Amino acid sequence: MTGSPLSLSSETATDRPRVVIVGAGFGGVEAAQALKGAPVEVMLVDRNNYHKFQPLLYQIATAGLTSGNVTMPVRDLLRGQDNARFRRATIADIDPEAQRIYAKAGASMTYDVLVLAVGAVTNYVDIEGVQEHAFPLKDIPDALNLRNHVLECFETADCNVALRNSCALDAVVVGGGPTGVETAAMLSELFRQTMCRDFEWVEPDTAQVHLVDRGSDLMAAYPPSLREYTRHSLEQRGVDVQLNTSVEAVSEEGVQTDDGFVRAGTVVWAAGVRAHPLAETVADALDVDLARGGRLPVTRALHVPDRPSLYAVGDVAGARNEGGSLYPQLAPVAIQQGAHVAHQIQRQLRDREPEPFRYRDLGKMATIGRNAGIADLAGGIQFKGVVAWLIWALVHVTKLPGLRNRLIAFLNWVYNYLTDDRKARMIVDTIPMHRTAEPSVRRIRRKLQSLENGESVS
Amino acid sequence: MTGSPLSLSSETATDRPRVVIVGAGFGGVEAAQALKGAPVEVMLVDRNNYHKFQPLLYQIATAGLTSGNVTMPVRDLLRGQDNARFRRATIADIDPEAQRIYAKAGASMTYDVLVLAVGAVTNYVDIEGVQEHAFPLKDIPDALNLRNHVLECFETADCNVALRNSCALDAVVVGGGPTGVETAAMLSELFRQTMCRDFEWVEPDTAQVHLVDRGSDLMAAYPPSLREYTRHSLEQRGVDVQLNTSVEAVSEEGVQTDDGFVRAGTVVWAAGVRAHPLAETVADALDVDLARGGRLPVTRALHVPDRPSLYAVGDVAGARNEGGSLYPQLAPVAIQQGAHVAHQIQRQLRDREPEPFRYRDLGKMATIGRNAGIADLAGGIQFKGVVAWLIWALVHVTKLPGLRNRLIAFLNWVYNYLTDDRKARMIVDTIPMHRTAEPSVRRIRRKLQSLENGESVS
Repeated sequence: MTGSPLSLSSETATDRPRVVIVGAGFGGVEAAQALKGAPVEVMLVDRNNYHKFQPLLYQIATAGLTSGNVTMPVRDLLRGQDNARFRRATIADIDPEAQRIYAKAGASMTYDVLVLAVGAVTNYVDIEGVQEHAFPLKDIPDALNLRNHVLECFETADCNVALRNSCALDAVVVGGGPTGVETAAMLSELFRQTMCRDFEWVEPDTAQVHLVDRGSDLMAAYPPSLREYTRHSLEQRGVDVQLNTSVEAVSEEGVQTDDGFVRAGTVVWAAGVRAHPLAETVADALDVDLARGGRLPVTRALHVPDRPSLYAVGDVAGARNEGGSLYPQLAPVAIQQGAHVAHQIQRQLRDREPEPFRYRDLGKMATIGRNAGIADLAGGIQFKGVVAWLIWALVHVTKLPGLRNRLIAFLNWVYNYLTDDRKARMIVDTIPMHRTAEPSVRRIRRKLQSLENGESVS
Repeated sequence: MTGSPLSLSSETATDRPRVVIVGAGFGGVEAAQALKGAPVEVMLVDRNNYHKFQPLLYQIATAGLTSGNVTMPVRDLLRGQDNARFRRATIADIDPEAQRIYAKAGASMTYDVLVLAVGAVTNYVDIEGVQEHAFPLKDIPDALNLRNHVLECFETADCNVALRNSCALDAVVVGGGPTGVETAAMLSELFRQTMCRDFEWVEPDTAQVHLVDRGSDLMAAYPPSLREYTRHSLEQRGVDVQLNTSVEAVSEEGVQTDDGFVRAGTVVWAAGVRAHPLAETVADALDVDLARGGRLPVTRALHVPDRPSLYAVGDVAGARNEGGSLYPQLAPVAIQQGAHVAHQIQRQLRDREPEPFRYRDLGKMATIGRNAGIADLAGGIQFKGVVAWLIWALVHVTKLPGLRNRLIAFLNWVYNYLTDDRKARMIVDTIPMHRTAEPSVRRIRRKLQSLENGESVS
C-alpha cells in the first residue's frame, strides 16, 4: 500500500489477503462479522459511519422512534474483531481489472477480494416531478425530512385557519409494497390519534392518507388472503386505497394519476428501489448486462461470472435461486448472502470449490399500524392481526443492533402502545435556527398557500 | 379574536383572560403548568414544537446522548390541562401598548397578561470571526452540528494520513463556565477514550482540547476549592487550561489569543449568553433601559415596572434579589420564577397585592466528565468528585421531562459508564445524501487541508 496522503488503506497493512466490503448494511456487516478469525484483513467501507436498521425507517418518518434508536456506529459492530477495520468513505468507482476502489474524495484502495454490498436506492423512475416533489424513504435523512415536513404542515396550519381544510395536510403514499403500506398505516394513525390530541381542530377526516399503487393488489409478494387483509386493515384505519392507478406526475400540489388529481401537501415515494449505481459501474467495466432492477449478475456462488474475487450480496446482487428467479430484496436474504460469501472466501483461501448459495426462507412479515400485521412464515403458516404484529415486534426488537437499542426500542413501543402516542414528534433538523431556518419555513408556507388557492392544479 | 386566516389565536376563545407565555423553556413551561385549573386561557408559544433539557445539550454535542433523549413535544407537557394550548410560532415583535404579539410569519395575537420567557441566546460579542467560525452551543441544532463536525474531522483524517498530526483534530473551547467546562471535559474523554478505540492511529495526545478563559479561575460562581478542583480535574483529563487569556479573533485555523495562536479544527463558543433580543424590543417600546446582559428589568414581583400585565422570567428577566443583585441565569431560577408568576397572575385576578419573588437556592452543580463533578449546595455543603457526579446524575435524570426520557437517559448513562463508550456518535444530519451532502464534506476537507498547510496562520 502506498503511503500517499490520500489513502483509504490502513498503514498497518499485513501480508494477509485484503477483503474489502463496500456497504455496511445487513449484508456487508454480516460478511465482515462472519470473517472474524479468518486469515484475512477485512476493510468495511460505507458512506455513513453508522449502520441503520432499514426495516424501521418508516417508524422514524412517522415519529414513533428517533434516528438514534435504529442506528449504531459501524465500528461498534466490529469491536473485538482484530482482523476488521471500518473506513467512512463514499465509493465512486471500482476498477475490477486493477482490483482497486476509488472514493469520491480521490482516495483509493486495492483489494484481493471485493464484496459489493451497497444495497439499493430509491427508484425515481421517469415521472415528472417525482424527484423534486416526492419524499423518498430509503435513508435516515430521508426519514427525518419526511417527519419534519409532515409535522411542519400541521404546525403551519395551526396558525393559519384557512389551511386546515385545504388538503394541505393530506398525504399520498405511492407504492403498495411493505414500505408504502407500513408508512401509510402509521401516517394515518399519527393523524387520527396523535394529531387529534395535539390540535383541537384536527378531526379524523382532517388529514387523509391515500395509498396509490398501479397493481391490482397491495403486498403483491404475500398470499391473497393476507393481501386482502392488508387492504381491509388500511381502509379500517382511514387510508384511501387506490389500486390499478398509475402516477403520471407529481407536483407541489399533489399527484396526477390516470384516474384524476389527488391533492396533498405530502407525497411519499415508496414505489420501489433499484440497485445502487455501482452495480452499473462494475457491469460496464466488465461488459456484462445488468439483471432486472439494475442488479449485478452473479453466479449461484454469488461472485460475478469469471471473477471469483468479486462478490455481490443483498439488494445490489442479481443472485438467482435453483429455479432461475432473482431473490427478493429482503434483509434476511442479504444477511444469509453475507454469511455465505464470508464462508466462500475462506474456502477460496484453501483452494476449495465454490458452493452455491441457498436461501433458507423463514418467511416474511409486515405491520399495518398498531396492533395489526401480516406474517407469511415457512411451511405455509400464516398469521394476521395482533398475533402477526406481536411476532413482527418480537423479531424486530431482537434483531436490532445492540442490547441498548433493543431495550430502548422495546420501551418506546410498549410506551407508544400503552399511551397510543408518538413521543418522537419533534421537528429537529441540523440547520441552526439563527441562520437558514427561515427559508425552509417560507417554502413550506408558500407550498401550503398555493395548495389552498388551488393554483396550477390540472 | 379575529377570524383572519393568519391568526395565532385559538378559535375557541373564551371570556376568560388570556395569558400568553412566550418561550417553552423551563420558566415558560413551569408557568403554564402552574396555571392549571386557574380561570384563565393559557397560550404557550415557542419557535420549536419541543421543550429541550438545556443542561444536557453538551451531552448531545459529545455523543453521549441523542437529541431525542433530551427533548419532548411541548404539547405532551400540557396534556390533560384543559385551559392551556400550545402554538408553534417565532415571535418577532411585541406591542405592549396594544397588548399584542406578532409572529415572524405575520400572524398576531392579543393578550391580557404576557409572560416573556424566551431565555438567552449565544453572546457572540464583537470579536472577529466568532460568528462565522465558532460553534455555538445553545440549541439542539447547534449541538448536532458540533457533534457532526467533530466526528467528521476524525473520519476525514482517517482517510488522510497527513491530517492526523496537524492540529485539525484539536478543539478550543472558549469560556470557563459550566457549559465550557462540561464540554471541554467530555470532548477530551471522547477523544482519549472512544476515539482511541475507534481509530487505531489515535493516541491520547492526537487530539488536544484547549479551554480558554479570560478570567483567573474556572467556574467563577463556585467557591475557590471547587474552582481549583475543576481545573485540576480538567488537566488530569488532558485538557489544556489557559486562564487570563483573551480571545482576539477566531478563524478557520483556530483562535488568536493575546497569548498566541491556538490552532484547532473546532472552536466552541461557550463564552456567555445574553438575553433574547425580544427583551430589547420590549424595552425600546416602553423606553426603559436594559439590565446587564440585555435583560429586561422587572420589579421584585417580576413584572415590568408600571406594567402589571407584562412579566418576564428566567434568563431574559432582569430580576434582582433583596440585595439588588441580578439572579444567576440558571434553570432552578427560571422554574421558580415561572411558578411565582403563575401565582401572581392568580392573585391579580382576585385584586390582591403583588408579592416579591424570593429564590430558594438549593445549590448548583456541574460535571467534569465521567466520575467527577462539583456541587455547591444550600447550607454551605460542598461535594466534589464521584459523589458530586452521582448527585448531578440523580438530579438531572429525575428532572428530565417524561418518564420515558428518564428511563432512557438513565439506561444510556449506565451503559456509557460501564462501557466507557459513546453510543450516539453517528454523523446524522437532515441533508439528503444524494442532494447536497457533498459541499459540506468538501468544505470540511478544505478547512482541514488549509490547517495542514499552515495557511494564513498569523
